Amino acid sequence: MLQALKQQVFEANLLLPKYHLVTFTWGNVSAIDRQNGVMVIKPSGVDYRSMTVDDMVVVDIDTGRIVEGDKKPSSDTDTHRVLYREFPQIGGVVHTHSRHATVWAQAGEPLSAIGTTHADYFYGPIPCTRPMTDEEINGDYEYETGRVIAETFARQGISPDEIPAVLVNSHGPFVWGSDADNAVHNAVVLEEIAYMNLFTRLLRPQTAAMQPSLLDKHYLRKHGKHAYYGQ
Amino acid sequence: MLQALKQQVFEANLLLPKYHLVTFTWGNVSAIDRQNGVMVIKPSGVDYRSMTVDDMVVVDIDTGRIVEGDKKPSSDTDTHRVLYREFPQIGGVVHTHSRHATVWAQAGEPLSAIGTTHADYFYGPIPCTRPMTDEEINGDYEYETGRVIAETFARQGISPDEIPAVLVNSHGPFVWGSDADNAVHNAVVLEEIAYMNLFTRLLRPQTAAMQPSLLDKHYLRKHGKHAYYGQ
Amino acid sequence: MLQALKQQVFEANLLLPKYHLVTFTWGNVSAIDRQNGVMVIKPSGVDYRSMTVDDMVVVDIDTGRIVEGDKKPSSDTDTHRVLYREFPQIGGVVHTHSRHATVWAQAGEPLSAIGTTHADYFYGPIPCTRPMTDEEINGDYEYETGRVIAETFARQGISPDEIPAVLVNSHGPFVWGSDADNAVHNAVVLEEIAYMNLFTRLLRPQTAAMQPSLLDKHYLRKHGKHAYYGQ
Amino acid sequence: MLQALKQQVFEANLLLPKYHLVTFTWGNVSAIDRQNGVMVIKPSGVDYRSMTVDDMVVVDIDTGRIVEGDKKPSSDTDTHRVLYREFPQIGGVVHTHSRHATVWAQAGEPLSAIGTTHADYFYGPIPCTRPMTDEEINGDYEYETGRVIAETFARQGISPDEIPAVLVNSHGPFVWGSDADNAVHNAVVLEEIAYMNLFTRLLRPQTAAMQPSLLDKHYLRKHGKHAYYGQ
Repeated sequence: MLQALKQQVFEANLLLPKYHLVTFTWGNVSAIDRQNGVMVIKPSGVDYRSMTVDDMVVVDIDTGRIVEGDKKPSSDTDTHRVLYREFPQIGGVVHTHSRHATVWAQAGEPLSAIGTTHADYFYGPIPCTRPMTDEEINGDYEYETGRVIAETFARQGISPDEIPAVLVNSHGPFVWGSDADNAVHNAVVLEEIAYMNLFTRLLRPQTAAMQPSLLDKHYLRKHGKHAYYGQ
Repeated sequence: MLQALKQQVFEANLLLPKYHLVTFTWGNVSAIDRQNGVMVIKPSGVDYRSMTVDDMVVVDIDTGRIVEGDKKPSSDTDTHRVLYREFPQIGGVVHTHSRHATVWAQAGEPLSAIGTTHADYFYGPIPCTRPMTDEEINGDYEYETGRVIAETFARQGISPDEIPAVLVNSHGPFVWGSDADNAVHNAVVLEEIAYMNLFTRLLRPQTAAMQPSLLDKHYLRKHGKHAYYGQ
Repeated sequence: MLQALKQQVFEANLLLPKYHLVTFTWGNVSAIDRQNGVMVIKPSGVDYRSMTVDDMVVVDIDTGRIVEGDKKPSSDTDTHRVLYREFPQIGGVVHTHSRHATVWAQAGEPLSAIGTTHADYFYGPIPCTRPMTDEEINGDYEYETGRVIAETFARQGISPDEIPAVLVNSHGPFVWGSDADNAVHNAVVLEEIAYMNLFTRLLRPQTAAMQPSLLDKHYLRKHGKHAYYGQ
Repeated sequence: MLQALKQQVFEANLLLPKYHLVTFTWGNVSAIDRQNGVMVIKPSGVDYRSMTVDDMVVVDIDTGRIVEGDKKPSSDTDTHRVLYREFPQIGGVVHTHSRHATVWAQAGEPLSAIGTTHADYFYGPIPCTRPMTDEEINGDYEYETGRVIAETFARQGISPDEIPAVLVNSHGPFVWGSDADNAVHNAVVLEEIAYMNLFTRLLRPQTAAMQPSLLDKHYLRKHGKHAYYGQ
């Protein structure tokens, strides 16, 4: 079973350069096996071109300890762990520094829902976290990054199932989904929205959020029991 | 005869990723057989890489019913249907979320004719539709989208034969042409114009519409009986 | 001899899609044989992928008549002809609608020399022509386009040998060089400069022209008798 | 030994077009052999596609004389020489006109550290040099370019080991690293940061430098004795 999950995570990591979401090793994908309480994640700083499925690292969700694997897991492992614990429905997590999502993270601004491309995937604005405190940064940094993401969703009353992405202030996006592949899919969509919103803002700064009825229509024609998009 | 049309529609759909007009399955092309009152359209949510010509769906223009095909047609089928009925000269329709045309749609602004690239294909500004009402959105949404496009052309006195594209407010472009291939051709041109107009606007916000005589010259050297461009 | 020139022009035309300077058939390259008073140019509206060397058209510089070839020459042929007559040192001419050079042409603004990339190839600002009059547009349009380019260089006292490019107002760039290949080379450089100047302007609107001494240094280390760049 | 260094420099030069950092021949990479007091550098104006390892030129660091090689070294050789002498820890130097780093150089502005992508590689702002004086430009220009870079780091108290890049005013970037390959790596990162900072600035002009604690955290988790990124 874990071999299949490792293969999925390995392949999902290879999608990051394919979709131009990463430069060098600046990204990582993981997936969780909730029954066994473990996740599989990319090793830290390993080149996508030389990486093999056996380089994937199995990490215990609760303790963060390496259960299997010869390599050190991604330095962002603890952020992934917190997300799996705080967001119990998600199956895969992606972190990248994709260009336009990172631009919004650097600006410290959320992505408003201003078009149907957004509404097809995200049921409202994609939040940006508050700046982390010095204590958080100097403490267990990657773990605290996950905590600040969870705090953002809790305080703003956002469902991580309806909004499967966040912009971490001054850093870049974390994105999730039902599994590793779906998380990468959402990361591609986020980058596309971030590009289009950036230039919509530059073209017409006062562009407001789309009508709630249009947001509902597009989100709900692809999600939930009344969905009618696809086969 | 329909087999040839299916092949054309299939190939025209494959041009969308080739020309970088779509991400994932975010686009669809159709073509009409006016004698038989049917159109052929891409199935909903099917990946371009695995799609075959037999996946194309034949739909009755008047009723919207599936005449032939195992798959559900594109969720935008009813918009295509309205366009074929309202614009009797057109033979193919394309919908995409191509990046820069979508930026203008999200900003809710038309594309003025400010250069000869535009004038070579579009005989005046490319309109943007008004926001749809909640009634339209909550009613027969895709059908109403087509209605709002037709209304936009009627109210502004624009000929769909001279301006084969529209920006649907908060959504993205619909483009048409003499057949499926020509509609995709026009969608590529629209995206190119949308890119250049965006940055012309940012460079020099007060850029005005081009001289009417230059618009005439370029449009008419490629269209109509006095055209002299090409072989 | 003309066979060799046809081959050069054919190959130079194929460089346009290779360097991403054209969409579809939106560009053309020519070269002159001054001894025989003829030029070779791309045929009008022919796809780069199906075009062969035998499609190249030989045109008399003085009369504009086709000397050899089965196809109609580029609709911009008369502009090329005027440039060869007015600028006696040049050997090749290129016209494209390359994205960023066209943005500046649409804005009706010249490209100031603000960096050494510019200075390595162009010895001062690249001018933008004045808008053409209705008489010019409704008259012999393509011929008048060439005349307005020549007028721009004459009135501003610019040497076409030192500034081998122009932006035609509301239209796009014409670029030239010692031969067809060199003209395409300059068209690539122009597009690169147009991109970088656009975003320099957006980043810092008040950016002024570079120091004259730096312009001299870079232009003259690559051009003229004291050049020391290259082998 | 020099054969190995030539091979490294040759391969590092080929990375420039691979990573889209150069157009035509607009870039050069060198590496130093400090024991022998020589550096290996790309020849001037030679096409990357036809260049071979034997075209690399060996130059004496102190005198600038060619020690080995049939070709003239890069016209920027003297700038490289000064950098190796002034910055004693560096092993490789790269110069490009990469688009977005050049935009900042043309604007004459430094790159503030506004995100963790920056902090992962550069321990503070990347400076832009002052405009050179006419005397410097008309004197030993390339040598003086190196001097102005060194002056910039000295006056601002910046360590070239912590900030392995500079923007040369009105020109473009010089980047360095532990060896030729690492210098190119840093040049790719610089271009990425330059892109993201440009659009962060356009999106939110008042974006301030990141928190010092976050800069520390990211820089030091990849550099120095407490680094824990990678294997």
